Amino acid sequence: MGDCLRRDGNMPLTKALTSEELERRLHTIGAERYHDKHPFHQKLHGGALNQGQVQAWVLNRFCYQNAIPRKDAALMSQITDVDLRREWRGRIEDHDGNRSGEGGLERWLVLAEGVGLDRNYVSSTDGALPATKFAVEAYVRFVRERPLLEAIASSLTELFAPNIHRQRIAGLLEHYAFANDDTLSYFRKRLEEAPKDVEFGLDYVLRHAREPSQQQGVIDALVFKTGVLWAQLDALYHAYVEPGHIPPGAFVPDKE
Amino acid sequence: MGDCLRRDGNMPLTKALTSEELERRLHTIGAERYHDKHPFHQKLHGGALNQGQVQAWVLNRFCYQNAIPRKDAALMSQITDVDLRREWRGRIEDHDGNRSGEGGLERWLVLAEGVGLDRNYVSSTDGALPATKFAVEAYVRFVRERPLLEAIASSLTELFAPNIHRQRIAGLLEHYAFANDDTLSYFRKRLEEAPKDVEFGLDYVLRHAREPSQQQGVIDALVFKTGVLWAQLDALYHAYVEPGHIPPGAFVPDKE
Repeated sequence: MGDCLRRDGNMPLTKALTSEELERRLHTIGAERYHDKHPFHQKLHGGALNQGQVQAWVLNRFCYQNAIPRKDAALMSQITDVDLRREWRGRIEDHDGNRSGEGGLERWLVLAEGVGLDRNYVSSTDGALPATKFAVEAYVRFVRERPLLEAIASSLTELFAPNIHRQRIAGLLEHYAFANDDTLSYFRKRLEEAPKDVEFGLDYVLRHAREPSQQQGVIDALVFKTGVLWAQLDALYHAYVEPGHIPPGAFVPDKE
Repeated sequence: MGDCLRRDGNMPLTKALTSEELERRLHTIGAERYHDKHPFHQKLHGGALNQGQVQAWVLNRFCYQNAIPRKDAALMSQITDVDLRREWRGRIEDHDGNRSGEGGLERWLVLAEGVGLDRNYVSSTDGALPATKFAVEAYVRFVRERPLLEAIASSLTELFAPNIHRQRIAGLLEHYAFANDDTLSYFRKRLEEAPKDVEFGLDYVLRHAREPSQQQGVIDALVFKTGVLWAQLDALYHAYVEPGHIPPGAFVPDKE
């Protein structure tokens, strides 16, 4: 990874952190960089977005959701230990389900229909922003190509996810007519699933990142991942909140 | 893929084959190139190998077995369709099982212990031949990097697997003391699993390979895969059947 991707505002590590220090550093990255702080999310959760803007978010975010099992499969393609591989497989099962009509992606498509989108159009990802696709594919490539430790570390944004899911459920229920138990089931289910995943991932990372270069790799991986999430919201904000910036070929909301 | 990898003895396709013609071509590749014809397998199934040679086969073949779920995960990292991804996931479940002590890899380790090897040594792959590892990793990279259609086509050596598994079960039971229902359970189970997988894979390939360039890609992928299998047996034969050729660091059988 070039230096342009490894700025968390600290000098590169030269001596090893304790496990507690490393964990604190990871939480600091979340506090400074996780996308709950992005103005797009503040507008979304505060009820300041119109229907077309919510649709644009749901549609673009599907790209990300659908890449997560591909990302986890790419990660599994690096795992030579059968027990670790089996553990990681559970994440794919959560998203893809065990049969048609189940799983996190299906729940996301229920949300898509709830905000008035066609599920086939959403699934096609035809209307998603190029910047969304680039960010998402950068994530898949990262876990495929970087050392396994860093690939696993990049999943640790889940440390910060339960808070944003709770804010989101409350905010959407308060402000938007489409919000109900059915359309928000994706987020509720993630509140059950994410904590066990992230506990496993954090434990793995803290046990395996002992040397300074490994710990720096872990820090950089989490910084990288916060960038993957933030960039998607920047692109949404530019295209759909600031007027007149939807790029050619991207989803155009109906006039309200 | 360079031309050096695309020799099946035919000119490149310039017009499309019918689905039946393509299927026949695939079967011809099996008839000419599948590793049931390799002299190492003929010796194995005919009872002509000593215990150390059988151990070398089991130990090296574990490398391949353990790479199969990684290969299938690499393939899944290319699949954007959730139904296809879920279908493919079943292959990983077959090999890795649903809990510790289950699955095809575990059954392979039972065979390893049955032929007198230590399961941890086998799992480490420390004693496997470099040529085995290169062939196996070439397969993982192939499915990660080539178009999805070709990645799926490379799995079609399973068309020819049931015959070799039946020959193997009969041959091993006839000739070797270690052979029993327990140690051979891997092969019996594959007789149940492989046919459903290969039926799905063949159907996918025949439906999606319509243009000459796609059909050529499918043919080349299957030729490539037969090379992955054949190269492993060449390396075993050279190292363990011809005396005196075990490379430094590779498994050395006990003197008999």
